[in-house]
Formats: sequence, C-alpha cells, structure tokens
Amino acid sequence: MSEFELIRRYFSDLGAARADVSLGVGDDCALLSVPPDQMLAVSIDTLNVGVHFFPDVDPASLGHKALAVGLSDLAAMGAEPVWATLALTLPDLDLDWVHAFALGFGCLADVYGVRLVGGDTTRGPLSVTVQVHGLVPQDMAIRRAGARPGDAIFVSGTLGDSALALRLRQDGKEIPSELQQRLDLPEPRVALGLHLRGIASAAIDLSDGLAGDLGHILEASGVGAELELKHLPLSPRVAEAVAESRDWSLPLQGGDDYELCVCVPPDRIEMVEVLATTLGVPLARVGWIRSALGIEAHLPNGGRSLIAARGYDHFTAIHPG
Amino acid sequence: MSEFELIRRYFSDLGAARADVSLGVGDDCALLSVPPDQMLAVSIDTLNVGVHFFPDVDPASLGHKALAVGLSDLAAMGAEPVWATLALTLPDLDLDWVHAFALGFGCLADVYGVRLVGGDTTRGPLSVTVQVHGLVPQDMAIRRAGARPGDAIFVSGTLGDSALALRLRQDGKEIPSELQQRLDLPEPRVALGLHLRGIASAAIDLSDGLAGDLGHILEASGVGAELELKHLPLSPRVAEAVAESRDWSLPLQGGDDYELCVCVPPDRIEMVEVLATTLGVPLARVGWIRSALGIEAHLPNGGRSLIAARGYDHFTAIHPG
Repeated sequence: MSEFELIRRYFSDLGAARADVSLGVGDDCALLSVPPDQMLAVSIDTLNVGVHFFPDVDPASLGHKALAVGLSDLAAMGAEPVWATLALTLPDLDLDWVHAFALGFGCLADVYGVRLVGGDTTRGPLSVTVQVHGLVPQDMAIRRAGARPGDAIFVSGTLGDSALALRLRQDGKEIPSELQQRLDLPEPRVALGLHLRGIASAAIDLSDGLAGDLGHILEASGVGAELELKHLPLSPRVAEAVAESRDWSLPLQGGDDYELCVCVPPDRIEMVEVLATTLGVPLARVGWIRSALGIEAHLPNGGRSLIAARGYDHFTAIHPG
Repeated sequence: MSEFELIRRYFSDLGAARADVSLGVGDDCALLSVPPDQMLAVSIDTLNVGVHFFPDVDPASLGHKALAVGLSDLAAMGAEPVWATLALTLPDLDLDWVHAFALGFGCLADVYGVRLVGGDTTRGPLSVTVQVHGLVPQDMAIRRAGARPGDAIFVSGTLGDSALALRLRQDGKEIPSELQQRLDLPEPRVALGLHLRGIASAAIDLSDGLAGDLGHILEASGVGAELELKHLPLSPRVAEAVAESRDWSLPLQGGDDYELCVCVPPDRIEMVEVLATTLGVPLARVGWIRSALGIEAHLPNGGRSLIAARGYDHFTAIHPG
C-alpha cells in the first residue's frame, strides 16, 4: 500500500453515516439521493497556505475550518448540510499531520450530520478545497436578492474578532485565546440558518467583512442600507480596539467572521428576536434596508458617513469622528 | 470592480443553459434540482502546476482538461453530466490567461450540456479543482465492484499516447501533434458510458494506467484478470515505442488516457461490440476476469507474466520476452 493510499484511508470513513449515500469514497463517483421535494444547495471554497492560513497552522483546526467555511454558506442559504467532498493538496506525506486534519474535519462533520463522500489527494503546495452539499425545500432557500426597503438588518455573534487576531499576529503581539479560537475554529450558524427559512428576506455569510458582504445583498436586491455603528456587536477586545483607534475597519472590513447577516421584513422582526433567544444565538439589529443605494453609517458621535461596500479586495478603512 | 470580480465575470455564464439550475454562480450556494428517479453522481479532481501539467500549459487546454477529467469519471459510472463547480487558484491576475481558460472549459461544458454553477477564485500557485455532477437512474450506475469471473474486459480508444507524449517532452524530443492532443485535450467517453448502463458489470476510467485502474476493479470485485498484451489497443506511435523497447509500461502504467476499462458478462459481449460500431467508438477486447487474484499478462511471445496492479504511485515497468 502506498502512502497516498494510507492517506486515503483516513478519509474513507469520515463524518456521520447517512442512508442517502449509496456509494461514498472509493469509486469513480459517489452516488447520492436527493429527496423529491428538496433542492440541492452546493458551495465550493479553497483555503491556500500563505493566503488563507499560516504555514504553521494546526492541522486539526484547518480541517475544522475548511469544512466550517462551507457549512457557513449552507447556513446563509437555509440549507441543511448533508455531504462534503474534499480536494487536499499536500507538499509531502506527513501521516500525523493528515491524521490530525482528518480528525478536525471529521469531528465537525459528525456534529452537523455531514458525510465525506468523495475526494482527491494530490501533491503540491498545501491547499484545501471543500465542496459542501445541503438540502432545502423547494422555494424555501434564502437568497441574496430578497432584501426590501424597510427590512431590518441583523448580524449574529460578534464582528472583527478574527481580523483582530490576524492584526495582532502581524504586529508580533500575543493573541488572546478567545480571538485565536474565532480565527481557527469558526462555528457555522447552521441552526440559525435553518430556522430563518420563511422568515428572512435575504441572508449572506460574513467571510469578507460586513461592508463587502452586505454590499452583495444590496447589489443583488437593488437597494441600499443604513447601519448604526453603535449597534454593531463587538467582543470586549474589538470594542476596545475600535475605541482606542476610532477605526471601524475591524468590524466593517475584517474577514473570517463566519457570522450571518440577515434581512428581515418589519412584521417578522419580533419573530426573529424570539428565535434568537430560543436558539441562544446572539443576534444584533444593526440597521435597515433603504431604497437609496449605498451604505450610510450612523456614527456614534451623531455624524454620518458613506461606507464603501467592499471587503478584502479593496480595503478601505473609515475613520469616523 | 476589482480584478478578481472581473475574473468572476468570465465564469458567471459558462456552459449550457439548464432548467434544473434555479440559482447558479453568484450567491452563497447554487440551487439545483435532481429528478426524483435519479441519483446524483459526484466526483472532484485537482490538477496542480508542476505535478499534473507544465507551467507553460496552454490555458484553453487546461480549462478543457480540468473538466474532461471529471466527465471521464461520470462516463465510467454511466452518469449523464449536468453541472460543474470550479475552484481556481491563480498566482496573478492575467486576464488573457483566464479568458482562454474559461473558453476551453466553457466549450467542453457546452458540448456535454454542462452548466458551471459555482466556484471560488483564490490567490496561490496555479491549481484547478473541478467537481462534476451527473445523474443516473436508481440502480443503473456502473460500479467497480460488479466484475465476475468470465466477464470480458474491454478498453476504449488507445492506451499510452499521453504517457509517450510526456516521455518525449522529458527527453527533450519533439512531440507529434496527435500525441500532444491526447495529453492536452482528452475526450471523455460520455456517450459510451451512458450506453453501457445495464450492459457493463463494472467500469473505471483510465487515469493512472490500465494495470492500476483495472486493479481497482479487481480489488473491489474480489477477482483477478488475464490480459492479452497483443490485443491492447495501441496507436502507431505507441506500438512502435513498445516494439523498439519491448517495454509495455506505456500502455499498462501510463497515465492520462481517460479511456474506459469495462467488464462485460459473456452473454452481453456481442451487444457491446454492436454498440461500439454504432457509436463509432473503438473498443478492444483485451482480456477476461478470472477468480484467481492478480493480473496475469499473456505475452506476445507466448510467455506469461504477473503484472503489479499499480499505477503512477509505484511505477513498475515490465519487460516481457
């Protein structure tokens, strides 16, 4: 048996057993059953060494994160996770590393009832591509294009923690463990996404920063938004960093949050607030949709400022006050 | 608009329009419909620069090949291609390169009625991961595990052309255009695969060489095989190389053929021979399945030799005669 075959063995039985998998890892294709009343939702994402993670990344964390990123996309769509495929490019055959990666991937897959059904292992610079597959009843998927003027905008969890962790690392400073965990082990908001079916008018997961990702909803829906910056949900560390620097780029343009940004019609706002309490998911109301295009921020000092609807590609810090 | 957004535009409308795509590129997930009587077949494959292709690869050829490799897996399963996703990692933003890549990918997608429904574009060393999605009626998929003693073994097309092209390049020799084309622009045997539903007992696509890939069928089916080397289908160039060197490794262990290796029960052999004629696909009968494990080669000189059921991982040349 070759080392590559050994590695494949680590991936031959990962995640939850599922009756809808007729054939999993080990043939030319996996064979899968989609129930007749459900649509298939799919999303593919790549994480590259030196771009999306550091070379010294903990392999179990990388396995977790590579799957979590995709599950977050399913959550934003209101889709129930079912299967994943994995294309893993490795520079060498470090069996301990692969074992740890598979553990991280497999544990998260177990938690969400996901089965790894196929994959490819190749040689090259370290890179992980995962495709996730979910199910959502016909016409119940939450799309980006459904936001309407008057809708409230909610954000789950807290914003900017991963970006602060990255900034501290780049500055050579110590990273508090709660920030490191947000960067390394994001928890996709799967339960929230499922319960937002039939409630949310639009949703997106926050991978490139609130301004850019909300901008995708606005563009798809042909609307604009106003944000109350003082209502952005911030952890104590990020709140402190924003207060010290008077720079809102951490929560507005920071990436890797993997929280949900959700638009909700006025008559369903109360329903969403009850839902958040029931699920135990922090959900902050941060603004509203308007018909005028663009994102206008209400600054804590009472001023207003237009925010560029951009994420990582075109980083634009705003310095209110 | 950022350059990455420009690149995404090249991929927003690739391949055939399909009514079963409710939502394609541009949201958190694609939304797809699978007919109630069909199973979903999926396969994911990665091609990395310096491993699977040369840095000076023609981008249109790479786009073609990245999709063809997946379609070949669907063909081996008897699945009808429907959708693809693409994770493309680029070292820089060369718009001309990306445009050509998208053309190559899109043309092949059009030919086979495939729609590109999602993707991810990231920075890093050049790498292409494609997941293909196909449909196959319940219980009609052709698996690796169905070969039985007495089945005939057929191989489509010719073997070893891509491996010879690679060898010539590595030796710094000129590559005849017909070999270069086999390496760069493989044609997946989709029509053949679809027509083998209900006829073939097992099939696999030849990506790592006949010995290794047939070995996967044998392992999954718990059987062995005998091969008549003089019946292996060889192009004139490969036949010449084998005759000169008396080395059968090109057709037996050469990769990148993307032909089908198919097992057929005795009572359906005639049906398959008629099918090959009808489809205009060359199909050579190269051996048969036996109950004794291992692959035994009948050499042209009348001798016999056991062949290692291995592909690229453990390259073992055999020197008969």
